[in-house]
Amino acid sequence: MGPSIQESLGKAIEHLTGEKILPEAASRTDRGVHARGQVIHFLLDTPFNPLRLQRGLNAILPPDIRVVHIEETEIDFHPTLLATSKEYQYLLCLGPVQEPVYRLYSWHFRSPLDLEKMHSAADQLIGTHNFTSFANESEKDPQCTLEQITINELPGHQLQISIVGNRFLYKMARNLIGTLVYIGAGKLSSDCIPALLASADRKKAGITAPAHGLYLHQVFYGKINILCVK
Amino acid sequence: MGPSIQESLGKAIEHLTGEKILPEAASRTDRGVHARGQVIHFLLDTPFNPLRLQRGLNAILPPDIRVVHIEETEIDFHPTLLATSKEYQYLLCLGPVQEPVYRLYSWHFRSPLDLEKMHSAADQLIGTHNFTSFANESEKDPQCTLEQITINELPGHQLQISIVGNRFLYKMARNLIGTLVYIGAGKLSSDCIPALLASADRKKAGITAPAHGLYLHQVFYGKINILCVK
Repeated sequence: MGPSIQESLGKAIEHLTGEKILPEAASRTDRGVHARGQVIHFLLDTPFNPLRLQRGLNAILPPDIRVVHIEETEIDFHPTLLATSKEYQYLLCLGPVQEPVYRLYSWHFRSPLDLEKMHSAADQLIGTHNFTSFANESEKDPQCTLEQITINELPGHQLQISIVGNRFLYKMARNLIGTLVYIGAGKLSSDCIPALLASADRKKAGITAPAHGLYLHQVFYGKINILCVK
Repeated sequence: MGPSIQESLGKAIEHLTGEKILPEAASRTDRGVHARGQVIHFLLDTPFNPLRLQRGLNAILPPDIRVVHIEETEIDFHPTLLATSKEYQYLLCLGPVQEPVYRLYSWHFRSPLDLEKMHSAADQLIGTHNFTSFANESEKDPQCTLEQITINELPGHQLQISIVGNRFLYKMARNLIGTLVYIGAGKLSSDCIPALLASADRKKAGITAPAHGLYLHQVFYGKINILCVK
C-alpha cells in the first residue's frame, strides 16, 4: 500500500471516529499497479456500524480510493500472515492502436501473440518452484506455489491474464507476465520454462511488464475474504 | 473537438508534413466527453502514405489522443455536412461503489433502475420528433430522428446505453440519458415521453447526465465510415 493510500485512509478514519490508527494492507503494490482487491486491516476502540463507516469513508476519501466492503474480524486477524493466496490480473491491449481511455489501465503490446504457446508455458509454471528467475530482488525463500494461470481474450483486442498463487516475490507477477508475453511473441521458446526455473537467473526470463496493466484482484483467507478497492 | 485536440493534431501534422492546416471535426464534444469515434478531416498538398502518417502521428501525439485510421477521401468530402448519423454510447455504474478506474469513464448512479421501464420509454423516443425538451439551448430546427436506442447490462454492475440519430441538439444525448435514468429510477413516469416531447419544455425532462459517461462512438457517412479516436 503506497503511503498516500495508507495516509488518506488513516486520515479519513480519524476524521470519522476520532481515532488515530495505522491501517495495514495485505499486499504492497508498486506505483501504477491497481490495488482493486486490496485488503486493509485496522483496529478501532469505538464501536462502529460497518456499512455506515464504509459510506462515510467513501464520502470523504479522494475519488481514486474506494472502500467496497467493511466487516469485523476476529481480534487475531492479520492481513498478511493469514492470507492463503492472492490473485493478480493483467490487462493487455493487442490492437495496432490502444484506446486512450485504457492508457493507464492496460499494456499496449503491438506484436501478435501466439496464445497456444502462452497457454502451454503457463501450464509449466503451475506448481511449487524456485521462482528466483522471476524476482527482481534476491529473496531468502524463493519457493512459491502457483495454483492457476488463465488467459482470456476479451472484446476490443484485449487479453486478460489471471495468476493465482500463495505468495509472490518482488515484481514476480509482472515478470511472469513479461515472460509469457515474450513467449507469445516468439522472443522466448514456449518450452523454456523448466530450464528457466532451474537456472535461477533473472536475466534469462522476459521483461518486467509495465505496472499500469497489473491489478491486485483478490486476496484469499481460506474461507474469509475481505475486499477493499483502490 | 476541443481546441487542445485540434491544436495538438494540427501541430503533429505540421511537424510531419511541414504543412500548417486546421483539422476539422465531425462533431463537437463537451469537456469530459470521450471522442472515441471522432472523424477529423484535413487537406494536405503533399502526397502521403496513410498508414505511415497514422503511425507517425501516434508516435508524437499526447497519449490521450490516438489516430486509429487514416484514409484519403474525395476532394468534396465534408466531415459534418456529409455525416448521415452518429452513435453515442453512455456508460453507467449501478453498483453501491464505483471502481476508481471508471471514475472518469462512467456515471455512478446508486439507485436501482427498472430496465423494463427504460426500454419502454426508449421505444417511444424512436422516430422524428421536436426534441426541444432535450436541448439546453434553443435551436432553429429542433427536429431530429432517433434511429435506435439499445440498453445493455454489462458485467460489473455496468449499464451501456447506445443512441443512434441523424443529429443531436446541444446536450441532447446527455439529456436523453438523464431522462431515461430518471424514468428507470421512478423519478419520471415511463409513459411520460409523448407529453414530454409535445411540451417542448426542457424543465420537464430529466437532468443532463454527466459528461464523463458519454462517448461519441461512431460517425456514419452512408457507406463511408472514417474513424479517429481521442
